[in-house]
Amino acid sequence: MKVSELGEFGLIELIHTSIARRCDMRSTAWQEVIVGIGDDAAAWQSADETQLATTDTMVQDIHFNPDIISWEELGWKALAVNLSDIAAMGGIPKYALLSLSLPGDLDVEAISQFCDGMVGLAKQFGVAMIGGNVSASPNVVITLTLIGCCEDGRMLRRSTASPGELIAVTGCLGTSAAGLEMLSSKAVPDRETATVLRQSHVKPTPRIAEGQILVEQGVKTAIDISDGLVNDLDHVCQSSRVNARIEAELLPVHSAVAVLFPNHLDLALCGGEDYELLFTADEATTARVKLALACPVTVIGKITEEKPATRVTVVNTQGELITCSKGGWEHFRNEFANTGFTQP
Amino acid sequence: MKVSELGEFGLIELIHTSIARRCDMRSTAWQEVIVGIGDDAAAWQSADETQLATTDTMVQDIHFNPDIISWEELGWKALAVNLSDIAAMGGIPKYALLSLSLPGDLDVEAISQFCDGMVGLAKQFGVAMIGGNVSASPNVVITLTLIGCCEDGRMLRRSTASPGELIAVTGCLGTSAAGLEMLSSKAVPDRETATVLRQSHVKPTPRIAEGQILVEQGVKTAIDISDGLVNDLDHVCQSSRVNARIEAELLPVHSAVAVLFPNHLDLALCGGEDYELLFTADEATTARVKLALACPVTVIGKITEEKPATRVTVVNTQGELITCSKGGWEHFRNEFANTGFTQP
Repeated sequence: MKVSELGEFGLIELIHTSIARRCDMRSTAWQEVIVGIGDDAAAWQSADETQLATTDTMVQDIHFNPDIISWEELGWKALAVNLSDIAAMGGIPKYALLSLSLPGDLDVEAISQFCDGMVGLAKQFGVAMIGGNVSASPNVVITLTLIGCCEDGRMLRRSTASPGELIAVTGCLGTSAAGLEMLSSKAVPDRETATVLRQSHVKPTPRIAEGQILVEQGVKTAIDISDGLVNDLDHVCQSSRVNARIEAELLPVHSAVAVLFPNHLDLALCGGEDYELLFTADEATTARVKLALACPVTVIGKITEEKPATRVTVVNTQGELITCSKGGWEHFRNEFANTGFTQP
Repeated sequence: MKVSELGEFGLIELIHTSIARRCDMRSTAWQEVIVGIGDDAAAWQSADETQLATTDTMVQDIHFNPDIISWEELGWKALAVNLSDIAAMGGIPKYALLSLSLPGDLDVEAISQFCDGMVGLAKQFGVAMIGGNVSASPNVVITLTLIGCCEDGRMLRRSTASPGELIAVTGCLGTSAAGLEMLSSKAVPDRETATVLRQSHVKPTPRIAEGQILVEQGVKTAIDISDGLVNDLDHVCQSSRVNARIEAELLPVHSAVAVLFPNHLDLALCGGEDYELLFTADEATTARVKLALACPVTVIGKITEEKPATRVTVVNTQGELITCSKGGWEHFRNEFANTGFTQP
């Protein structure tokens, strides 16, 4: 079987199984692991706190097009996507390692700009860039690993959602995918809208403070929306052994996206890379979170009992099912699955 | 200027400078950093111990040729090269994150074998594989990040070599490069030799226990030989602001390599990927290390005062200089520089 047939999530499952089958969990390191493969970040216990680590890769022409994103923006984004994973655990980001694989004919100035963008964001969150690796490669591949921490075991997980809990998200959904559509099609909306869409796609701001506030307010379950709402909520459902029901009309969509993009529902449901946080909590906790967070918080649905049917269902105002044949951004199998939604 | 003109070490310097210029070192994370960019691993202080982290990337057709190395060996090697960096700090390896970028048409079986190789080695050193990332890519790119620790500040550095100290290495040099030459040319020596050469290149054993014993015996300075002896010793000299003098006839070369490879001196001086440890120490400490280590330890030269001349000089039995125009394996600029040595 080919990797493309197995798909990204199947591949992760294969790696997980291969490791679990052969590893020896009696070692000190394994004994200290709290969260292994399958959450936004891994976690292990050290003397006085819980340590977190996550890694993310951006491949030229797969994750980014150098004609669309500047090197400075790319440096920012490479760190931002990792910060978002630490945010989804409610953690504090601390140390970063950068691995850059580059073609020899790349202009050195590109790397200066890349570092400027990365360090600009690192500064905002007090992240120390402590090491890395450079190597030659036919195309640009950027892997960044971020290490962080949180108070003893006080973190957000994917596996703790319960039936009856509300599902809520920070900010707006689909803005990044709309930004990518705008940048790819060279469509020119008004300047202000163009800036919002572009920033959302190329310079997302990770929800670090928001993740920590979720923990403080008693939220247990969260994920960042990187693969698209339906996909990421599906991860939560799979991990927590629950189902979820989303009401399409509740989805927070930026007014400009709603006006300019006829496919804004697809973008909000399946467009990846919003780097907003999705969390589940009871009504009282959700109400406290709304008061505590400066950004918009929107309830978009509910966690339900696990049933053998589709884990994530989306309904329209009439309560009719919007079936989702493909959930979002998955590597190997497809591009954005923005044709995967059919309204009955 | 192009990246290829700047070279690998110039690029690392550029990244280092770009980060140092713009970062804000007043953050908690930066305050805790003990070793930043420029050693085998980065180090920072946590409550009760020193944490270490390193990352290394292997790119298809740059670092490995899938026709020469099996997927199982590749998994082993991806972890081994990182373990070697922790060994060079005298540290204990603990947690690993794997980032795999793969073409969709790759056979899934390759990934199972890759994991088997990686986990096989992880088991030997008690390493927990705790997370990672998968993504599509036109060619295979493997980045592994390894986190470890050592007792409070008790680690090996590149920057602490002093004039008068002996330079010593573990094991043999040039065996891995000889293995690569054998595998590339499809030359067939006797079976036993072929196994030694192949293993050395595709399944190196990192010197984890040896690194820890170096620390226990009072050694302060070490590096692992990944870029080739001259290159890596040059890193130590640059970091420590000293020079070094190597006696070519002292270099430990495997008897089969000495017999079968007329260029064995080049391989020992410039062939990378031996993953042996080079250390510097006074005579008494070196003698203790020789007794404490089970593997061969060979004194190959001496650290001298810093002078503006070449940092690393190599002399033959007559005391004549062997000039080294190119020190080993450097990305972007060249392939193995095994033509760079000229005897006067």
